[in-house]
Amino acid sequence: MSSLDEHYPTPCAFCKIATAYPPDASSPIPSNPDPEKIDPQCFLLLSTPHVLAFLDILPIAPGHILLATRKHYQKLSDLHNSPHSSGDGPEAHAAAAREEAREEARETSRALGEYLPLLSRALCQVTGIEDWNVVQNNGERAAQVVPHIHFHLIPRYQEGRRDVAGRKGKVDVGMLKSWTVFGRGAREDLDEVEAEEMARELRGVMREELEGGRGVVGGKAKL
Amino acid sequence: MSSLDEHYPTPCAFCKIATAYPPDASSPIPSNPDPEKIDPQCFLLLSTPHVLAFLDILPIAPGHILLATRKHYQKLSDLHNSPHSSGDGPEAHAAAAREEAREEARETSRALGEYLPLLSRALCQVTGIEDWNVVQNNGERAAQVVPHIHFHLIPRYQEGRRDVAGRKGKVDVGMLKSWTVFGRGAREDLDEVEAEEMARELRGVMREELEGGRGVVGGKAKL
Ligand SMILES: [Zn+2]
Ligand SMILES: [Zn+2]
Ligand SMILES: [Zn+2]
Ligand SMILES: [Zn+2]
Repeated sequence: MSSLDEHYPTPCAFCKIATAYPPDASSPIPSNPDPEKIDPQCFLLLSTPHVLAFLDILPIAPGHILLATRKHYQKLSDLHNSPHSSGDGPEAHAAAAREEAREEARETSRALGEYLPLLSRALCQVTGIEDWNVVQNNGERAAQVVPHIHFHLIPRYQEGRRDVAGRKGKVDVGMLKSWTVFGRGAREDLDEVEAEEMARELRGVMREELEGGRGVVGGKAKL
Repeated sequence: MSSLDEHYPTPCAFCKIATAYPPDASSPIPSNPDPEKIDPQCFLLLSTPHVLAFLDILPIAPGHILLATRKHYQKLSDLHNSPHSSGDGPEAHAAAAREEAREEARETSRALGEYLPLLSRALCQVTGIEDWNVVQNNGERAAQVVPHIHFHLIPRYQEGRRDVAGRKGKVDVGMLKSWTVFGRGAREDLDEVEAEEMARELRGVMREELEGGRGVVGGKAKL
């Protein structure tokens, strides 16, 4: 909060999403979230006390997902998870607040790791892809556009191949050859009808895995 | 283990590292690990029951770090972390083994998330960079070369800038513009003397943060 106030007179795009969609205690998978709660629309996939996932509004390929922290941290290095207190604050109150912030950061970093596999399985199942990249950029020289920690999950469609759901990758593999795609160039706006449909399917697959009791969803189960 | 036996007649490169460097109960940061325990040499940075970090032997830039799972999983989707048992096994024994594998996968995914920030802070402090990419590839079409889950931490040096430790980025930002660099092409072999020095510094910074009681290391502390 304080870092938000200091650095952003208006909340950043992902803080806006976090505020519009508070966590639901009953499930990490939101049921029928309203995309029009904010502008531009948000196609929400996951909402927990520590992280949120939603479709990228400028997808490199259909099914391009973002996993972001709920709180505003700019870079991964801002997630401080040291177990030991520094002891340099004069007041016990400050030390307690620092300890709480550290625990929050630690839980957030662990949630990022925990939800990447679940989102990956849903992405494979819904789009039919088998290969994908996970990319997280820190700082301008690393092509970070929104200064709020987020991981991109980017499906790699086989060239010319139609996926199981009948969708066609709009962007071929060649486009991914340039790092410039991680900026704002060369990306199409999200088709809202298609996005809502895909978001619903992704949520359905994740809900089934987490709550449906089958335990193994998508791809070649090894465990 | 079973998936390893099935798919790899000889252990994969990262399984070799995991076997050569078992976890040390006293600290996640190994003290003076011998790089020559395996061939090619391994410059180990981190070793826990669930994850390992070491320098990439074909770095895109000096300080290029890999964070890998200790067990052999090929893709992020193979980290099954569903809390509910599928109940499709006829025996209680199989169900228990499946539950154990799931807990192992869940803890592994959480450890991946937890150690990325610590490694990031050490990378920034030792190399002097402020920007970096985190990249994790799944499958051939996504440029995955070693079929064992790993995250790349790739520093982005300012062009022509010497970092604090007097090192010069061998590879300029332009090289990162091509995704082909995530394969084996266009990457220099690691200089072993330089690598050992950098690994020692990275371990030192991480050990100081985890055990030195200062709590905040590197970059602009916000918490
Ligand atoms: Zn934000
Ligand atoms: Zn981004
Ligand atoms: Zn392996
Ligand atoms: Zn790799």
